Amino acid sequence: MHLKKMTIIGVGLIGGSFAKGIKKAQLCDQITGFGPNEKELQTAVELNVIDNYSLDLSTAVKGADLILLSVPLGAMQAVLADIKPFITDKTIITDVGSAKASVLNAVKNVFGKIPSHFVAGHPIAGKEKSGVEAACDALFDAHKVILTPSPETDKQALEQVQHLWQALGADVSEMTPEFHDEVFAATSHLPHLLAFGLVNLLNEHEELGNVFQYTAGGFRDFTRIASSDATMWRDISMSNSQAIVKWLKNYQQELDYLITLVEKQESDKIYDFFIQAKKARDTHIQ
Amino acid sequence: MHLKKMTIIGVGLIGGSFAKGIKKAQLCDQITGFGPNEKELQTAVELNVIDNYSLDLSTAVKGADLILLSVPLGAMQAVLADIKPFITDKTIITDVGSAKASVLNAVKNVFGKIPSHFVAGHPIAGKEKSGVEAACDALFDAHKVILTPSPETDKQALEQVQHLWQALGADVSEMTPEFHDEVFAATSHLPHLLAFGLVNLLNEHEELGNVFQYTAGGFRDFTRIASSDATMWRDISMSNSQAIVKWLKNYQQELDYLITLVEKQESDKIYDFFIQAKKARDTHIQ
Repeated sequence: MHLKKMTIIGVGLIGGSFAKGIKKAQLCDQITGFGPNEKELQTAVELNVIDNYSLDLSTAVKGADLILLSVPLGAMQAVLADIKPFITDKTIITDVGSAKASVLNAVKNVFGKIPSHFVAGHPIAGKEKSGVEAACDALFDAHKVILTPSPETDKQALEQVQHLWQALGADVSEMTPEFHDEVFAATSHLPHLLAFGLVNLLNEHEELGNVFQYTAGGFRDFTRIASSDATMWRDISMSNSQAIVKWLKNYQQELDYLITLVEKQESDKIYDFFIQAKKARDTHIQ
Repeated sequence: MHLKKMTIIGVGLIGGSFAKGIKKAQLCDQITGFGPNEKELQTAVELNVIDNYSLDLSTAVKGADLILLSVPLGAMQAVLADIKPFITDKTIITDVGSAKASVLNAVKNVFGKIPSHFVAGHPIAGKEKSGVEAACDALFDAHKVILTPSPETDKQALEQVQHLWQALGADVSEMTPEFHDEVFAATSHLPHLLAFGLVNLLNEHEELGNVFQYTAGGFRDFTRIASSDATMWRDISMSNSQAIVKWLKNYQQELDYLITLVEKQESDKIYDFFIQAKKARDTHIQ
């Protein structure tokens, strides 16, 4: 399963960490980077994240056994269209997009179907810092990676992608794109939007002055994800909008219930609400 | 400003950390603990948090220059009534309650007015761990402590309380009880209730299975405060219900706006929403 050449399209935190891990595991002879920003690609070479780069897409992609698409969801379809002329039926293409139905739609729009060597993926790892300087070969170690293969996906291509993630220490599992998008709308997209929302709410209420000065560690942790990349989260919101709206509305209903309890001073039910949450978190989250 | 005797009523995380800090700073000859649980008080003595304890309130309080009330908000009025027979006009009483109007109401209910030696306070520090074992003499170092004195508050009593907190490294400031309750409804009570709500929402949606398994560091940090003490947060919700409901409703309006943006696929406005939040957080929260 050794690869001769791999091309990373988008050498930022995720693409760079993948490349670094693969280099460390010595699973590929040559890792080539491609992206719109030459300075970042030079940095990636200097940091030994990739072996080389090209600003010409056909050169970058030519002869690659595997292409990793690590670009914003909003750029996925354009990048797929750009690489289409330079790949063969055997070129494995995989991605790291945080929403999967929209990526598979983009693939269908470009190829007219899901090519057998396209393997949709999503590593559940990240940092608030972005860019190749933040890349780290252990980023995916002990983290989940979800693959959402289609019925037409080639078994060997799927195994190859699995093998690479596992070599980085990841715990790889499979689900349908629809289930994936529902689960991550609830567990990831929802809390991110809630955190952005809270910071904006407090920032707008000028009559209290700068209320951020009165916050402590709890607030800092709660809102840490509100420092995430705005472009990435815009793209996720656009790409998984239906599930996100559904879960935002589910959450509103949960708040409606809590508001009623507090308004009516339902002491016991308020306690039950909090203790249930505390127990669930203490049980499930380490 | 040296004290002969101080009584800590409620020797848990906050009361215990206060006592430890005061002992370290050598500002008091004798620190006595009082609480309903003898084993915890014994532990507090063993950990050198307090010098001694009594299970008899009159003995514990007798001769104290200062009494720190570090009990749940819901217990404040009962404790004030209990200590009333054993104190003098000169006994300084201060508290650490997270909501201030309700504490001052409890004081008025018991004393018929705000005694000149009562100084209402709130240290902005905590941990998810509770109990005296978690107490730490540096808990308040570089943290804010808010005092909400009344017009009738004695200047020397106020200065004494200020002095003690400052000796623990705290940054002490003053505000009205009403402003305090509004600010902390927004910056502390709101995010706590939001975190409890998210965990409950995900815990209830069994059709997705155990979704907690798909969460990562962002979710862990976002929900950390949902592991806080349920009794404490029930009491805060009951004590500051009006401001909390107001801010929960403000937050729902913020979410209504965000839902509309995502439903209408307002790409630019979604980006603006996220980048504003990111900039505000990156500016104000270290």
